[in-house]
Amino acid sequence: MKKQMRLNALDMNCVGCCPGLWLHPEDQTTRYNTLEYWTELAQLLERGLFDALFIADIFGIYDVYGGNADAAFRNAVEFPVNDPFLLVPAMALVTKHLSFGITGTPTYEPPYSFARRLSTLDHLTNGRFAWNIVTGYMDSAARAFGQDKQIPHDERYELANEFMQVVYKLWEGSWEDGAVLRDKANRIFARPDKIHKVRHQGKYFRTDAYHICEPSPQRTPVLFQAGASSKGRQFAAKHAECVFISGPTRKIAAGTASDVRKQAARLGRDPGSLVIFAGIGAVVGKTDAEAQAKLADYHKYVSIEGSLSLFSGYTGIDFSKYDLDMPLEYVEIDAIQTIMEEFTKADPTRRWTLREVALHLSGGKSALAGSPATIADELIGWMDETGVDGFNLHYMVSPGDLVDFVDMVVPELQRRGVYKTSYEEGTLREKLYGKGRRYLPDDHPAANYRYGQSLFE
Amino acid sequence: MKKQMRLNALDMNCVGCCPGLWLHPEDQTTRYNTLEYWTELAQLLERGLFDALFIADIFGIYDVYGGNADAAFRNAVEFPVNDPFLLVPAMALVTKHLSFGITGTPTYEPPYSFARRLSTLDHLTNGRFAWNIVTGYMDSAARAFGQDKQIPHDERYELANEFMQVVYKLWEGSWEDGAVLRDKANRIFARPDKIHKVRHQGKYFRTDAYHICEPSPQRTPVLFQAGASSKGRQFAAKHAECVFISGPTRKIAAGTASDVRKQAARLGRDPGSLVIFAGIGAVVGKTDAEAQAKLADYHKYVSIEGSLSLFSGYTGIDFSKYDLDMPLEYVEIDAIQTIMEEFTKADPTRRWTLREVALHLSGGKSALAGSPATIADELIGWMDETGVDGFNLHYMVSPGDLVDFVDMVVPELQRRGVYKTSYEEGTLREKLYGKGRRYLPDDHPAANYRYGQSLFE
Repeated sequence: MKKQMRLNALDMNCVGCCPGLWLHPEDQTTRYNTLEYWTELAQLLERGLFDALFIADIFGIYDVYGGNADAAFRNAVEFPVNDPFLLVPAMALVTKHLSFGITGTPTYEPPYSFARRLSTLDHLTNGRFAWNIVTGYMDSAARAFGQDKQIPHDERYELANEFMQVVYKLWEGSWEDGAVLRDKANRIFARPDKIHKVRHQGKYFRTDAYHICEPSPQRTPVLFQAGASSKGRQFAAKHAECVFISGPTRKIAAGTASDVRKQAARLGRDPGSLVIFAGIGAVVGKTDAEAQAKLADYHKYVSIEGSLSLFSGYTGIDFSKYDLDMPLEYVEIDAIQTIMEEFTKADPTRRWTLREVALHLSGGKSALAGSPATIADELIGWMDETGVDGFNLHYMVSPGDLVDFVDMVVPELQRRGVYKTSYEEGTLREKLYGKGRRYLPDDHPAANYRYGQSLFE
Repeated sequence: MKKQMRLNALDMNCVGCCPGLWLHPEDQTTRYNTLEYWTELAQLLERGLFDALFIADIFGIYDVYGGNADAAFRNAVEFPVNDPFLLVPAMALVTKHLSFGITGTPTYEPPYSFARRLSTLDHLTNGRFAWNIVTGYMDSAARAFGQDKQIPHDERYELANEFMQVVYKLWEGSWEDGAVLRDKANRIFARPDKIHKVRHQGKYFRTDAYHICEPSPQRTPVLFQAGASSKGRQFAAKHAECVFISGPTRKIAAGTASDVRKQAARLGRDPGSLVIFAGIGAVVGKTDAEAQAKLADYHKYVSIEGSLSLFSGYTGIDFSKYDLDMPLEYVEIDAIQTIMEEFTKADPTRRWTLREVALHLSGGKSALAGSPATIADELIGWMDETGVDGFNLHYMVSPGDLVDFVDMVVPELQRRGVYKTSYEEGTLREKLYGKGRRYLPDDHPAANYRYGQSLFE
């Protein structure tokens, strides 16, 4: 059998993912604060046999452009953004197999209640829950949580590693298998001898308590991670089961995928067990020409101001002061050069202007536009050449782009034998790794925090 | 028109509310970790035109009885207990009018993300959300969150008051009315001049950020509180719109209700605007005899050990060492006498044994048992004599007790003209106070934290 393509859809609990595209007449992301937007989306994705809906999240606001947050407010640039965890129960109710990968950060919340929240979701979804671990990147988020500024980048990963220890102890170590009997005849719900207190005293966290939830179907939810930095990639290699990478080219993606797998192997993990997703956008038409016309139409709605608000936030540079049509290489600021590396690596000869970067960030980002056959060729080509296992599908207009993908591209992928025609039974981890694989494998670091193992206390 | 009775149902995201009753063949609370238990319950309550489902919550574990948590584990005494907030979106999806009052504590979580969670729920439910504010009471909870022991009782209320300031600023002050335009024609989502940063620097909390959510239908969710202590009652008089009180007798309940209203008036609030709910249980049969027989059957399932695990937790006294059948007045411990005040006030001549207290705590708690007419008489009598506005209905066996109440007592109350025959339109606050009352009134302390008011900064 040909290697099967994994698919997640990417969204965020806010007004769309691409600055300006909420203005498109067909876009429905202003309904982000209704249950129906999300339940309809979940049902659509389940019809398309997607593995998961992955919801990004961010605390903080893009307040560098123009020296304030005005552009972010005007263009609804990832702000306002509602809590993503609360979308899951409603979507789980209207689906049976679709999983949910939700972003949460160890940086600002206590691990004890966070672990309860995730265990609850794993229970309520019957094991269709995944956690995307992020450390955040905005000082404005730190200020919201009472700090002067962010903990430095590398230290955020140190903190995140300790947070993982605490939640692993709670999820994997506190309740042994067989602790819960639910035995009405003998009037015993759970066996005290199989429930253990977690004692943790570290640099950042401290707890001395039983996990407040009985073991959920997967115990530890499936772990997603997307770190692009060196520390981030180390973290992914250690903890993640599913890793998100961004292109921009097949060659670069192949290098990143291979590097993460190598690092995982060095840590004693099966490198093939990492499921790697490349971020990609797809604008589909019946023909290539129709798709290209659609993409051109979308570009009319892009907000350059909104996009630059993002770009200024990423880089810390106020681009409101720059000429939109000047090639960026003439702007001699290190931070830009670092950000531009992605672009220049992809095509060293091209000179990007600020306007082009803004368009790219606003959804042109790795966007394919073409007929179902063209898109299928591209996706299969990517998998063949990069070793990735599938894609995180970005939309520009929601749910339109996803409807087109489900109705047109999915059948094409199925005809070519690279995409499932029905879901596997079981939890998300079983769907990814096979029947009986509900829990993290023994080569995962969490296994050391099980009761009786070296690191549980 | 006769005064209309308000009704909430009380539950908790765990294996039942009464120790031992999960053993009853008809009890379904072991399904607490499925979505379906909750969506079925919500639909039942909406059929009975209940105002809200109120979900209690607690961090920590009852570990005083026997010197450990064994009795709590064996009998599933409020442990395990999953996150209650995550039940709301699924229940909201299958209902249109029922509201949800969920318990959350200021003691252990940062206000910034907490405010986002509640705003998100108010959005997703179209304003059918209420927050029950508690401060917690267990050292085991403090240890779970990395503290040696609890912040002292009175200081917990000081902290809670400051927490309220922060969330009021976020909910009421950060976004003015009219800030959100969603104006596609003019390409503007929100007006920067109407969105304001919250700056708070207090003893316990600090933030410097915009609220991350646009205003939800009610802005501040409807506020529930149940404080029984002197500080707790002060807190309720200041902040709560709905106040929960426990009996045990009409006379005592009347005194409590009147005291809370007086305290609210002293703070400049309309005392009549407080909606006061008395906790009450109701076991219903076609006849009084049938109901009494049902209650007697339920009592066979009560776990004395489980109940005493609760009682030991409340008092800090290990009752595993005491004779079950000795009258408690002979146990000369101050803490018991305080707890027993409720009982002795109700009937100063009665001598309670430990076994009787355990039975009482395990669901006999204020339980009425009778025919629909008897129950209706009792409830109406309570309202007439105490000035309470309605009841928090406890169950012993779920959902059976609630099914009986909805099928038998609700029609009886409707026939007597004391209970609505359809829901009002609008948010929970509008359902309670009338059309146009989506927001907190100007006499509520939160009003001072609106933009331009004295306490917003």
